[in-house]
Amino acid sequence: MNIGVLGTGTVGETIATALIENGHTVRMGSRTAGNDKAKAWVKKSKKNASEGSFNDAAVFGDLLFLCLNGAYALDAVKSVDPDNVRKKIVVDVTNPLDFTKGMPPRILEGLGNSNSLGEEIQKAWPNASVVKALNTLTAKLMVEPKLVNHGDHSLFICGNDADAKNKVKHFFVDSFGWKPENLIDLGGIECARGSEAYVPFWVSMMQALGTPMFNVKVVR
Amino acid sequence: MNIGVLGTGTVGETIATALIENGHTVRMGSRTAGNDKAKAWVKKSKKNASEGSFNDAAVFGDLLFLCLNGAYALDAVKSVDPDNVRKKIVVDVTNPLDFTKGMPPRILEGLGNSNSLGEEIQKAWPNASVVKALNTLTAKLMVEPKLVNHGDHSLFICGNDADAKNKVKHFFVDSFGWKPENLIDLGGIECARGSEAYVPFWVSMMQALGTPMFNVKVVR
Repeated sequence: MNIGVLGTGTVGETIATALIENGHTVRMGSRTAGNDKAKAWVKKSKKNASEGSFNDAAVFGDLLFLCLNGAYALDAVKSVDPDNVRKKIVVDVTNPLDFTKGMPPRILEGLGNSNSLGEEIQKAWPNASVVKALNTLTAKLMVEPKLVNHGDHSLFICGNDADAKNKVKHFFVDSFGWKPENLIDLGGIECARGSEAYVPFWVSMMQALGTPMFNVKVVR
Repeated sequence: MNIGVLGTGTVGETIATALIENGHTVRMGSRTAGNDKAKAWVKKSKKNASEGSFNDAAVFGDLLFLCLNGAYALDAVKSVDPDNVRKKIVVDVTNPLDFTKGMPPRILEGLGNSNSLGEEIQKAWPNASVVKALNTLTAKLMVEPKLVNHGDHSLFICGNDADAKNKVKHFFVDSFGWKPENLIDLGGIECARGSEAYVPFWVSMMQALGTPMFNVKVVR
């Protein structure tokens, strides 16, 4: 599959690399084509990898992953013509975190409580199907859940398009090894408020545990 | 032990009843002594139970549980003379939730993101040791964790007084059957921001799962 990964940070690189290893063809997008980190990733990946602007990656992908810094995510999304993402599935991995005022991080002004980045991105791309997912754990575990507890832990998904959510679930199972019974569909994209607000709590847990290599498993 | 439980709702009644069953002597506090729900609870409990104002319960208890509606919790706390809680351990089970604007609930204005009810309560009672705990799961599970997954799931604790946190941990293990290895100390009382912000997410999970009888287990 042709996949666009928007973002060149740890999350973007980790997901893009895992996608290449799973046989997909990936274009990494950044603010301007020719970004140093994107070029280094293309070089390292050898085949099936290319890079370009956010818009280039969005045009290229049949499926998109948004792996953007929360503070700049909406600017990046708005730099893409919404017609270029029409009917595409967009996995939104962003978190609206503000680390500038110390730990634990806060949620960026205007993007918490009664709003979320997931909702804002869905509004900016009204004809795309935004699925919030993967934003609640460290990058390595997103694409290799088996690294803790034999892969037995929970992933939270939400979005307005049930068909898109199902496709994303299958993709996560097939490409990253998630167990279907651990994928929890919370509901519409407004549920991104919860999974994004959870992340400062996750940071506190990470500090308490001394490692980002953990997740939560919902038990009943 | 003499214990004060402030609050007459489901959480207060569940905790107060469990404490009586564990051999403690409990005074339930409400806005004014003679509250109907408090009187009914005293009658049902038969022995070791009494009721009074918030201040009466605070004076009575060597250990206090705050089981107040988040919207009125600070008013209740401020109705108690801080000298009456000097050097006492206060388990704060409150959540600053606003259900008036639909689901998922929001965090009450001014009590989220860079603040929390836990911190405000600690400020209002500076000579007490506030330990935020039990606020991340349904009342029944607080006092009977074995009801899901054989009691194997996580409880998050935070507060500024390490000795108070240790005493609370032992109390939870001895009185409610929590497993010591599942009690996660997040750090100072400012970590209440995270465990309180988690609760709207918990509500979304509850809606998705169709039951409040679940919790998360941290897996590594």
